[in-house]
Amino acid sequence: MLNAVDKKLLEEVADLHDVPQGAYNIRKNGEGISRNTTANIDIVTKQDKPGINIIIKPKTKGESVHIPVIISKEGLNDTVYNTFEVGEDSDVLIVAGCGIHNSGSEKAQHDGIHEFFVRKGAHMKYIEKHYGEGDGTGERVLNPKTIIEVEEDGVAELEMIQIKGVDKTIRDTEVVLHKNARLIVTERLLTYLDQNAESNITVELVGEDSSAQIISRSVAQDDSKQIFHLNLRGHAKCRGHIQCDSIIMDNAQVSSIPEISAFHSDAQLIHEAAIGKIASDQLTKLMTLGLTEKEAEDTVLRGFLG
Amino acid sequence: MLNAVDKKLLEEVADLHDVPQGAYNIRKNGEGISRNTTANIDIVTKQDKPGINIIIKPKTKGESVHIPVIISKEGLNDTVYNTFEVGEDSDVLIVAGCGIHNSGSEKAQHDGIHEFFVRKGAHMKYIEKHYGEGDGTGERVLNPKTIIEVEEDGVAELEMIQIKGVDKTIRDTEVVLHKNARLIVTERLLTYLDQNAESNITVELVGEDSSAQIISRSVAQDDSKQIFHLNLRGHAKCRGHIQCDSIIMDNAQVSSIPEISAFHSDAQLIHEAAIGKIASDQLTKLMTLGLTEKEAEDTVLRGFLG
Repeated sequence: MLNAVDKKLLEEVADLHDVPQGAYNIRKNGEGISRNTTANIDIVTKQDKPGINIIIKPKTKGESVHIPVIISKEGLNDTVYNTFEVGEDSDVLIVAGCGIHNSGSEKAQHDGIHEFFVRKGAHMKYIEKHYGEGDGTGERVLNPKTIIEVEEDGVAELEMIQIKGVDKTIRDTEVVLHKNARLIVTERLLTYLDQNAESNITVELVGEDSSAQIISRSVAQDDSKQIFHLNLRGHAKCRGHIQCDSIIMDNAQVSSIPEISAFHSDAQLIHEAAIGKIASDQLTKLMTLGLTEKEAEDTVLRGFLG
Repeated sequence: MLNAVDKKLLEEVADLHDVPQGAYNIRKNGEGISRNTTANIDIVTKQDKPGINIIIKPKTKGESVHIPVIISKEGLNDTVYNTFEVGEDSDVLIVAGCGIHNSGSEKAQHDGIHEFFVRKGAHMKYIEKHYGEGDGTGERVLNPKTIIEVEEDGVAELEMIQIKGVDKTIRDTEVVLHKNARLIVTERLLTYLDQNAESNITVELVGEDSSAQIISRSVAQDDSKQIFHLNLRGHAKCRGHIQCDSIIMDNAQVSSIPEISAFHSDAQLIHEAAIGKIASDQLTKLMTLGLTEKEAEDTVLRGFLG
């Protein structure tokens, strides 16, 4: 059922060499092709629109759900709606991600709309990798929308990575944090050629003692363009920190337009952003050790995005 | 010609106890009431619209121009257009500012549109203080628009201060920096009651080796609201740094929505913003020394805005 191209994509987006352990749902070219559920994690096909409901029972610990999407057909515009119920006091890993192999001349697009309910005291780690390949001229487009509500004492930890091959992306992430809820976001983005990437993250800190930390690192090469809107809005006693660092190269363009807004006098919000070129002292040092300039550059960038 | 109220306003906005030394133009209730020019600094009334042209000869050093505006009448909506020609290799101080005494029930408003041409190698220090007073219910509104072009090797140093009594303000500042030009902006803002303040600063770094530094500090008390849009846009090899710190108290609201955009790989841009409450350890220390909480708070805020 999985051919060589599929397996390559799965490895890129979900570090999988074959079907995963635990619960999973693999979607290929707009259709679910393989699914496994466990005693604690159910996966149910939505009746009203394309997509699945992933239901994780309360107190489920140490389990994982993989829901990779692979697309190997040009001209496909696949939109999918997935809803995650992360039960009270559970502690789970969710691995999503989408890989596109487009060797044609038409666009291949996947829009994943993911909604998460992280219930009281639950801890969710969510990893999402986006990857494109294929020597066709057809564009590879990925527009993820991620909506997360974290209830009291819940934790949502997100790793969102797009390193290679995605021509256009608009990434929308909206998070609401209730009392004592915590959000940690790590974003890694690399664009090259004439790729375009836009990342919009808005966090509403509505509950007392909620906290959010967003660390975004990006590299923009060639003629690529990146825009970041990273927003923290504090409505209660809360803490938030955004750090947004970009390395700009060649003829690339990077804009960072964050917002920190305090609607409460005990909201404490910090934003730091920097755009600059690759540190020349690091390059020089690596070249002294025998690396070529290109190798040195790759090493520094890998470290920065690692 | 200057009554006691006028003199109080002049002192608040321009640190003047009477008419200033050097070149000056004093505008009161929509009309020029007093002017002095010097051998190097000419002031000419505009023919096409309200306002003046201030022409500073090349190489003028160590001279100053004061152009305060005072308003002591309710119901006045005064718009004025001033153009400053800061000649090559000059080094001058320009003190503007507007004071409103409104003891009536109608709004008193002043919109000052200031355009500056800082010529090659010139150094301009520009101080602008805005101040309101009066026990009337009429609003005191000040909307300054400041447009600055700094030519090669020029320096523009701005101090923009609004500490007291302005009910509404929208402050627009637009700066273009050419080769090796430098901008230093210090902004101080305090709002209270239900005052509203919006500050928009956009700096276009178009010339090679241009640099900009913006340091904004604000305090928002009571039910007041502040919005900051501080933007740096790098189009060449350049350096820019924004630092925006706000202390939020009571039911105030503060939003900081900066932009850093790099359109060139040698643009190096940094933004830092923080919103939080007054540091409690500083308060405690001062109270240990015998100050009341209110006195301690005032001391910390004065230090922060000083």
